[in-house]
Amino acid sequence: MRGIGDDAAVVKALKLCVTSVDSVVEGVHFRLDEHTDFSEIGWRALAAALSDIAAMAAQTGEAYIALGVPPHVSERQALELMQGAEQLAEQTDTTIAGGDVVASPTLFVSVTAVGWAERDQKLIGRDGARPGDLVGVTGTLGARPARPTPKLREARALAPAGLHAMIDLSDGIATDALHLARAGGVTLKIDLEKLPIDERTEACARELGIPAWQAAASSGEDYELCVCVPPRRLERVKQAALRADVELTWVGHVLEGEPRLLLHHQGRPQQLSGYEHRW
Amino acid sequence: MRGIGDDAAVVKALKLCVTSVDSVVEGVHFRLDEHTDFSEIGWRALAAALSDIAAMAAQTGEAYIALGVPPHVSERQALELMQGAEQLAEQTDTTIAGGDVVASPTLFVSVTAVGWAERDQKLIGRDGARPGDLVGVTGTLGARPARPTPKLREARALAPAGLHAMIDLSDGIATDALHLARAGGVTLKIDLEKLPIDERTEACARELGIPAWQAAASSGEDYELCVCVPPRRLERVKQAALRADVELTWVGHVLEGEPRLLLHHQGRPQQLSGYEHRW
Repeated sequence: MRGIGDDAAVVKALKLCVTSVDSVVEGVHFRLDEHTDFSEIGWRALAAALSDIAAMAAQTGEAYIALGVPPHVSERQALELMQGAEQLAEQTDTTIAGGDVVASPTLFVSVTAVGWAERDQKLIGRDGARPGDLVGVTGTLGARPARPTPKLREARALAPAGLHAMIDLSDGIATDALHLARAGGVTLKIDLEKLPIDERTEACARELGIPAWQAAASSGEDYELCVCVPPRRLERVKQAALRADVELTWVGHVLEGEPRLLLHHQGRPQQLSGYEHRW
Repeated sequence: MRGIGDDAAVVKALKLCVTSVDSVVEGVHFRLDEHTDFSEIGWRALAAALSDIAAMAAQTGEAYIALGVPPHVSERQALELMQGAEQLAEQTDTTIAGGDVVASPTLFVSVTAVGWAERDQKLIGRDGARPGDLVGVTGTLGARPARPTPKLREARALAPAGLHAMIDLSDGIATDALHLARAGGVTLKIDLEKLPIDERTEACARELGIPAWQAAASSGEDYELCVCVPPRRLERVKQAALRADVELTWVGHVLEGEPRLLLHHQGRPQQLSGYEHRW
């Protein structure tokens, strides 16, 4: 790799280049006050972009960070932000290979994450769901960790076992499973009572008097994965999950029909739109 | 290529991936008023990133655009901005392969431009200048075109003829030639009276009563290239320029000595710092 000091960064490529861009902006995605942990902002911005790389089952490569720094953010705080990104980069074998720092009235971070694959067959798109597939999710849903981990390891453990489709739950399963349905031209049915719910989410939902599955289905910032698996690959995928210590819960099915998402709770249809931003 | 609709864009790679990031922000790099041409903002943002790809002599590939859209910019204006980028993309064989649109208090555009090369030897860095090299610049300096063209064609025409080093003049030769000197660990001497100056720049400088070479040396937004060529390759480079119809003017030399830039005008040393942002 040529250094960051040249006109552009140069890295050795594999056959396929997988790229995702994600931006966060002060006042829209986060607020600044005296308690703000700037390293968390950097971590989360990179996590969002890397989660898309995970969802394709690509291997991590480089990240490029464009940073807009306003007068009310000090150089030390900007460095903390970059250090937060660097911490996640190290944990995920990602190289922060370049970027751009500019003055800006508001703080923003745009991350371009680049992943790699040797063959197209190794990548899992959103569009492969077929009627009869089982729908699974990794981990537990609903937690909103300060430093979410993109599920790169989990995706690359499950992919070779034979996934038809995969997506990261960046907006919650009630939104993202619809993307799988639309991209695949199929109906997805999720049984909400089967969702693996984070313990603290469960406790908080009880406190607030709302069903925990509502909170879990509309929370995406834990970046878990949602996968579609043909029945004939089910055992292989379960074995792969077991070997790699990936929690995998089966929460629904793919049906023939128009591209849409059916959310059921104990057999009854549910609507979740409108809950997305309430929790 | 997988479509933009998936979690990430997937493109076929060549051996080396060359990446540059460039951001522009409302109130810092441009202002918005009733006369603002939004397509120009998009064009210029992409041009800045592609100019770095040109400066490496890489071939163009993809661009990813992160766009922050404030309430005072309409959807139509945001589309115009993207269309401006798309126009330059088409002219330069660049595919806008993805991006991210977010709400933001201020308009910003971050462009990640990706170029490609088959071999490291095909790329020209900033760091190759050697004592004895001649220093040349493409085109004319000083013009500030509304829609500057990154010198991709020019760079790729000259590079195979044997350049030691190359940089794009994004800040003006008085700044960028210093980068060549520092990266190469050499002294660069520029004879300011030799600079090829844009006609209108010349006329305006006369009007303002400042030497035209001051304006030309500190203007970079035309994105011309500055190259260092060993004497034994001089004829080949001249021939390549002639064949490709690239104007190339010899404006200085590389000398042994500490990494610094000497600016001379008709034999007398000149200081240009401070002029950079006046013009």
